[in-house]
Amino acid sequence: MILGKIIGTVWSTRKEETLVGAKFLIVRQVNLKYEEKENFIVAVDSVGVGLGEIVLVAQGSSARQTTFTKNKPVDAVIMAKVDKLDITKV
Amino acid sequence: MILGKIIGTVWSTRKEETLVGAKFLIVRQVNLKYEEKENFIVAVDSVGVGLGEIVLVAQGSSARQTTFTKNKPVDAVIMAKVDKLDITKV
Amino acid sequence: MILGKIIGTVWSTRKEETLVGAKFLIVRQVNLKYEEKENFIVAVDSVGVGLGEIVLVAQGSSARQTTFTKNKPVDAVIMAKVDKLDITKV
Amino acid sequence: MILGKIIGTVWSTRKEETLVGAKFLIVRQVNLKYEEKENFIVAVDSVGVGLGEIVLVAQGSSARQTTFTKNKPVDAVIMAKVDKLDITKV
Amino acid sequence: MILGKIIGTVWSTRKEETLVGAKFLIVRQVNLKYEEKENFIVAVDSVGVGLGEIVLVAQGSSARQTTFTKNKPVDAVIMAKVDKLDITKV
Repeated sequence: MILGKIIGTVWSTRKEETLVGAKFLIVRQVNLKYEEKENFIVAVDSVGVGLGEIVLVAQGSSARQTTFTKNKPVDAVIMAKVDKLDITKV
Repeated sequence: MILGKIIGTVWSTRKEETLVGAKFLIVRQVNLKYEEKENFIVAVDSVGVGLGEIVLVAQGSSARQTTFTKNKPVDAVIMAKVDKLDITKV
Repeated sequence: MILGKIIGTVWSTRKEETLVGAKFLIVRQVNLKYEEKENFIVAVDSVGVGLGEIVLVAQGSSARQTTFTKNKPVDAVIMAKVDKLDITKV
Repeated sequence: MILGKIIGTVWSTRKEETLVGAKFLIVRQVNLKYEEKENFIVAVDSVGVGLGEIVLVAQGSSARQTTFTKNKPVDAVIMAKVDKLDITKV
Repeated sequence: MILGKIIGTVWSTRKEETLVGAKFLIVRQVNLKYEEKENFIVAVDSVGVGLGEIVLVAQGSSARQTTFTKNKPVDAVIMAKVDKLDITKV
């Protein structure tokens, strides 16, 4: 999974019919200090997160392993809200 | 999903037999200001979009989760036309 | 799908048993002017293409959605020969 | 698979319901001398590893081929702890 | 598929139980002149190859389409030993 930060929303009226009701969030990838990187992806929310929150995003077919995304054309899902990271210098 | 802009069409007469009727569009990836990046992909249209429109593209096996693309050798599908982005500086 | 140009062939005697008869082509990725990029991939041909031709390549599990590649360990398939591109400056 | 080093843990209370009990580890990619690269991923542990250990990570749908990850929205799994590498200069 | 050269072996005692007996090889990606690139991946051998040999590697779910790798958490498999490349300047 990648680590990201919710920075916005995508509005879409015309979309694949199975996607009605989907919430598309813009997730910017962050490093371990939560500093934003340049790249971003659009992911469907499966846990209920808000702007500025740090999340984990699963991609590929794994993005379809939630009740809402099952059998739908989405390749990225937010499957966890991150509380904190424990990093150890080894 | 990645964010892209429709910039053209691919014409193909000889193709895998299940792909007859497929509309292959050229999608250039864009940033959050809709500025075009260098890289592009070719995707099948599942929602009916036109030149210059901003879209979301799902890739991998998720690209086959639409009525038209099911069981076909395509790895990228346009599954939403983007109306607008709401970006929040957090 | 990515856009590529056929530049060669891979000869392989010892391979996974289901791949006997497979034609492995070397596809160099090209830009929209058909100029070759540095990176290349090896793909199985499902449509019958020749040297120098421009093609579309589908990757991942989508590469197994053709009669020949079904259930085989290949992750890239040539599924269309490109006649031409229509690019519009929007 | 990629080669990585366990450098930390992700704490998450709110997550997809099937992921309760999952242990999310932060894995920094390393080179063949075990020197850390910049990029990292978050992976589920299926073998029981600890901080500083070198591991192999499988990604994509292959990450769901373990008893714990089956049918769950995770795209990276630690499936082996590395004892050592034998590198030969050929 | 990507083109690579076998440069070593990964030793692992503790691993996912279905992987007992798996042979993990270190494959460095090469260019068309067989010159080694910086990046490498670890792949399971399905054809019986040795150090210094040039191979093709299939990734993702396609890596599980061999008798040994079926339903196992591996995302890269060596599915062909390369005899030679025929490159044509077009």
